[in-house]
Amino acid sequence: MNKAAVIQKILAAESAAPLELGAAYAPANIALCKYWGKRDIELNLPVTGSLSVSLGDMGTHTQISISDRDSLILDGTPMPADHKINARLFSFLDHFRTAANLYFAVESNSTVPIGAGLASSASGFAATVLALKELFQWELSNEKLSVLARMGSGSASRSVYNGFVEWHAGVEDDGLDSVAESLNIQWPEFRIAVLTVSDAPKKIGSTEAMNRTVGESVLYESWPKKTAHDLPIIRQALYDKDISALGAQAESNALSMHATMLGCIPPVCYFEPETIDALQKIWALRKDGVEVYATMDAGPNVKLIFESAAQEDILDVFPELKIINPHK
Amino acid sequence: MNKAAVIQKILAAESAAPLELGAAYAPANIALCKYWGKRDIELNLPVTGSLSVSLGDMGTHTQISISDRDSLILDGTPMPADHKINARLFSFLDHFRTAANLYFAVESNSTVPIGAGLASSASGFAATVLALKELFQWELSNEKLSVLARMGSGSASRSVYNGFVEWHAGVEDDGLDSVAESLNIQWPEFRIAVLTVSDAPKKIGSTEAMNRTVGESVLYESWPKKTAHDLPIIRQALYDKDISALGAQAESNALSMHATMLGCIPPVCYFEPETIDALQKIWALRKDGVEVYATMDAGPNVKLIFESAAQEDILDVFPELKIINPHK
Repeated sequence: MNKAAVIQKILAAESAAPLELGAAYAPANIALCKYWGKRDIELNLPVTGSLSVSLGDMGTHTQISISDRDSLILDGTPMPADHKINARLFSFLDHFRTAANLYFAVESNSTVPIGAGLASSASGFAATVLALKELFQWELSNEKLSVLARMGSGSASRSVYNGFVEWHAGVEDDGLDSVAESLNIQWPEFRIAVLTVSDAPKKIGSTEAMNRTVGESVLYESWPKKTAHDLPIIRQALYDKDISALGAQAESNALSMHATMLGCIPPVCYFEPETIDALQKIWALRKDGVEVYATMDAGPNVKLIFESAAQEDILDVFPELKIINPHK
Repeated sequence: MNKAAVIQKILAAESAAPLELGAAYAPANIALCKYWGKRDIELNLPVTGSLSVSLGDMGTHTQISISDRDSLILDGTPMPADHKINARLFSFLDHFRTAANLYFAVESNSTVPIGAGLASSASGFAATVLALKELFQWELSNEKLSVLARMGSGSASRSVYNGFVEWHAGVEDDGLDSVAESLNIQWPEFRIAVLTVSDAPKKIGSTEAMNRTVGESVLYESWPKKTAHDLPIIRQALYDKDISALGAQAESNALSMHATMLGCIPPVCYFEPETIDALQKIWALRKDGVEVYATMDAGPNVKLIFESAAQEDILDVFPELKIINPHK
């Protein structure tokens, strides 16, 4: 099924008359059980479910106003019309033009530290959809908004919520059941931190790495089973606020995702020497009784998972750490 | 089936009267398609077939003589009776005592550079079996000798031959069809080299890593399929003397083996920062047109696969490399 048809289904009952301006904020998110592999590339339908934590006030503020031409200002900088970010954003916005000469002026500001290795497409597309909701005064559920955001960027489906979020894989061809929902869990002591080991541009983008892994890596065949095993354990650990169970399973899930990439030919390896050094330090801390666990996304940086009580011991080893309280 | 019964089957027609002394040499070997996971732990029967290259004059010289007590001299040093190497060797030799008061004095000398990260159990047990053949004047085929060596250490089955060797997984309970055979391939330009990135003792032994991976890692479920895919490609590349095809597949096979370990809980990670640095240099050389590929065993060191013509370019980047010509 194509994207335009799905979006038409969702918006069928909505008014086509926009206000002048819609503005919204969406947080970035980090997956504790990873989204890795698509069953439908056009609709960004995932092979498996996934589970994330939204990053509170680290995310993207976006406002969209009706204009006589498309334009994007990103973090204060007007982007050239032929920039690939423009192409991706406006081909998504094409689906929301309710009149022939309707154009969008988009202004977007990120509160994610530059080079923190936090995906900006998730908060970016979620904020875009939430701003469109304001602009067109849609009366859509959060689940429907997560479906729209997902068609911009898969993990954006999870960024329409705060806190802990589960994105269900779904089974339908149109993906209307591939929705994210809030788990409604409060865990004030939970922390996640970003250790930037490299802010050099990635040698291979995460979408390419994902699609190559699905196509080339024999090990990917185990991934659906790995996620089916990990996801309920991770969800339950969140309900139980059990950092040991959560951390062990989330770490295994993340490293297994990287493992599937090593099976590509040639291998896709996001590990840098500094990545291994950081992982070894985390494992050494654990041996010393400090409950801290690693997760990683499609890049060399390491994210640390822990509770606030462990913060001081961890900062001793990683003084440069950016610590995030998702419930702040 | 137990080890004693299988050994009895093999030796049924052999004489029990030993000479005074038997001596033999067996090379170490490096797998190009890895042995990873046992279907029978007592008999060292593998889940999959594997394929290796023997390392010419790098290996183990062993002589065994009849004595009034068991003793082992390893590289000139008499080993204490309670050392774990003695325990492992003499519990294996228990199966070959043809009289009540028959003991073995074993002297073993390795020509493998210390700290090169080359498994000594493969050449050690192969040389032991070949020395027993001389001692007892067995009239056994090489295949049968590979079965005996395999019951000492899995990969020893491949060390009873020089050159390129395939070890068939077999399907029988007694493992008499789990034999190694020489592929009879001459490839004089083929080189393998060892880059020692760490000679610190391993944090986890390879047998424990293997057994934990089989038991804990969901990703291991893909390993038999990965090997079924890789092994015929690697074998054909050897027949074709096609370094590109061989290298790409052997590298993918080795990294996929490490990938399966990352799925353990907690992860088993033999990568050191220096391992990643070496892999990145190999991949950079390849980008520059130098045909060099990596393989790794259950440890942090990296082995390089190439043809002699590439040797100079590779030494420019890795001056400390120990280069082995297996056909020398």
